[in-house]
Amino acid sequence: MVFKKITLIGTSTESFDAAADDAIDRAESTLQNVHWAEVDELGVEIASADDREYQAEVTVAFELED
Amino acid sequence: MVFKKITLIGTSTESFDAAADDAIDRAESTLQNVHWAEVDELGVEIASADDREYQAEVTVAFELED
Amino acid sequence: MVFKKITLIGTSTESFDAAADDAIDRAESTLQNVHWAEVDELGVEIASADDREYQAEVTVAFELED
Amino acid sequence: MVFKKITLIGTSTESFDAAADDAIDRAESTLQNVHWAEVDELGVEIASADDREYQAEVTVAFELED
Amino acid sequence: MVFKKITLIGTSTESFDAAADDAIDRAESTLQNVHWAEVDELGVEIASADDREYQAEVTVAFELED
Amino acid sequence: MVFKKITLIGTSTESFDAAADDAIDRAESTLQNVHWAEVDELGVEIASADDREYQAEVTVAFELED
Amino acid sequence: MVFKKITLIGTSTESFDAAADDAIDRAESTLQNVHWAEVDELGVEIASADDREYQAEVTVAFELED
Amino acid sequence: MVFKKITLIGTSTESFDAAADDAIDRAESTLQNVHWAEVDELGVEIASADDREYQAEVTVAFELED
Amino acid sequence: MVFKKITLIGTSTESFDAAADDAIDRAESTLQNVHWAEVDELGVEIASADDREYQAEVTVAFELED
Amino acid sequence: MVFKKITLIGTSTESFDAAADDAIDRAESTLQNVHWAEVDELGVEIASADDREYQAEVTVAFELED
Amino acid sequence: MVFKKITLIGTSTESFDAAADDAIDRAESTLQNVHWAEVDELGVEIASADDREYQAEVTVAFELED
Amino acid sequence: MVFKKITLIGTSTESFDAAADDAIDRAESTLQNVHWAEVDELGVEIASADDREYQAEVTVAFELED
Repeated sequence: MVFKKITLIGTSTESFDAAADDAIDRAESTLQNVHWAEVDELGVEIASADDREYQAEVTVAFELED
Repeated sequence: MVFKKITLIGTSTESFDAAADDAIDRAESTLQNVHWAEVDELGVEIASADDREYQAEVTVAFELED
Repeated sequence: MVFKKITLIGTSTESFDAAADDAIDRAESTLQNVHWAEVDELGVEIASADDREYQAEVTVAFELED
Repeated sequence: MVFKKITLIGTSTESFDAAADDAIDRAESTLQNVHWAEVDELGVEIASADDREYQAEVTVAFELED
Repeated sequence: MVFKKITLIGTSTESFDAAADDAIDRAESTLQNVHWAEVDELGVEIASADDREYQAEVTVAFELED
Repeated sequence: MVFKKITLIGTSTESFDAAADDAIDRAESTLQNVHWAEVDELGVEIASADDREYQAEVTVAFELED
Repeated sequence: MVFKKITLIGTSTESFDAAADDAIDRAESTLQNVHWAEVDELGVEIASADDREYQAEVTVAFELED
Repeated sequence: MVFKKITLIGTSTESFDAAADDAIDRAESTLQNVHWAEVDELGVEIASADDREYQAEVTVAFELED
Repeated sequence: MVFKKITLIGTSTESFDAAADDAIDRAESTLQNVHWAEVDELGVEIASADDREYQAEVTVAFELED
Repeated sequence: MVFKKITLIGTSTESFDAAADDAIDRAESTLQNVHWAEVDELGVEIASADDREYQAEVTVAFELED
Repeated sequence: MVFKKITLIGTSTESFDAAADDAIDRAESTLQNVHWAEVDELGVEIASADDREYQAEVTVAFELED
Repeated sequence: MVFKKITLIGTSTESFDAAADDAIDRAESTLQNVHWAEVDELGVEIASADDREYQAEVTVAFELED
């Protein structure tokens, strides 16, 4: 059994929780067998967004098929 | 005055805030004089949970009695 | 174009999101051209607060005027 | 010449060495020109495995083709 | 569900694997529901040991009972 | 031979050395076979203390009995 | 909006700047919507290169399409 | 003698060296007695700039007047 | 309630304790409501000082007025 | 009593344990009074070796003679 | 002008300051042109010493002759 | 095969690249079989230099002879 990790940054105008969910949703829509996720960093984009854009950098681990 | 630190991981199917509260609730139910808590890591367990399980690793500091 | 970074700690009795917003609100009330913010640490003050006080240490970057 | 790095977690019921080899074997079976690997973390999964499952998180660098 | 983490240093005159197992064995002999372990540091004690003493600092997570 | 590590914060109105000693004194008064201590962090509490309170976070390693 | 991050190592016989550009050039030749890059590490390969080979490990963030 | 440290991010369309100089130039134009500077991070802004914008986050130390 | 953090380096020809106090004294002479301080780094300047100059880099947190 | 630390990288075609032993063997063949060793990093060289070459970066502490 | 850095651990039965001075004294007795020192770690050896032995790991920078 | 690592700080009034080369030049003039170098830190000395002095702390790895 081998896992692979990839790093995504999810965004939300609502909350850090929603930003993390955004990244995990994306991972689960394209990958089979996502096992867990680790939050690497939280941030807020302000200048280039209309509102505050909450961002969560998330590393997702999924099991590779044999 | 001497403090001791212990590390707990709280869980919640709702949010990271609830996961951190879960760990602090546990600490306060068994320890006197909890002073503060530091969030070490946030993560999400996916494969072994029905839903996403939000996890917060929290280090709790409490004052030891003389 | 030069940016400056300062570090603030926002507080809230509600959530980590509100604590981070508290710090960013303060930055935006006194500084022009705030571009982004990075969450450095999350913590909870327990002993010296009536309730749990959620804290978010946030580093804010803003563009200096020429 | 450009290298790319990916992160894999190999597993073994025998040893950390075998877990690292497991990840590198997988990389070499799907990638050309693997140059080196760095061990990021070692861990042991206990509860969800029949036996102890040794895990090695390994970042593998391979040369991209032109 | 709340987990607690404790940090042990196992020792062995044979190998790092055996030193890590030594720490996990100890944890499992005194704690219920050990879920996983993380290797924090590997070292070798030379001067105060007859032979080389391999050491593995291991943080063990176990589930607290309700 | 297995060691366990615990983390204490000693305090002193005099000096960082005294704060570290305070934590080690406490460890030695309740634990057998304390082998060494590592200083994790030094800080000073100012607002909630009459005087400056020097603090030393210290991780203490002691040998577990068989 | 979700970003993905990948890690590349660019090389140059001229300078660290050129090595970083090498990695970013590669990313932009194969990926749409590259937003920013972070320099993780700088190094110099000496023994296996005719000349000094400057290396820049660069993590590149790009926006995923919906 | 007391020093203060502030953190600036300089930018340049040319090179990392020029980006670091940009931040130090700014510091020296507004502060007396700048003693040294430390490079914290190097990055490249791509999406929101016409060209690549090299960025150097620099912490500058200057001596405070009595 | 919002706190701000600034970083100072105090110096002393006597000791690290006195160097940390030097930085905190300076902070308290110009800032209201200093709450706590964290020691970031300890060092010794030798070549450019007549004697050894002990240095303590200290980050000081103070409460901002509304 | 003063210790000095040096950093060596041992290599082995067999295992990480043998690579660490290789570095410690070398230290003990040229230095008196080696007290302990810390494993800094584990890696595997693949492209420039016939087989996988396991590498262990090890920092060795030895007591200096008066 | 090129500097070299070496790492020493000084010891003292009195204080951390004396332990750091012990390491710097040793460096200055064998090296010309010692410029500065950085404290890497503070610790206390307890089991193998009659008294508490304060230890300071110090990295010393000195200028190499042409 | 065993490698040893040493840490040098090169300086230049021109650029960070030249400062890193300065350190590597010095290593190659006194050591056989230098294999690679890693940049640990970049900084600028301002107060004690006529001009800005760019500094690159570089750790150099070389193969020890049998």
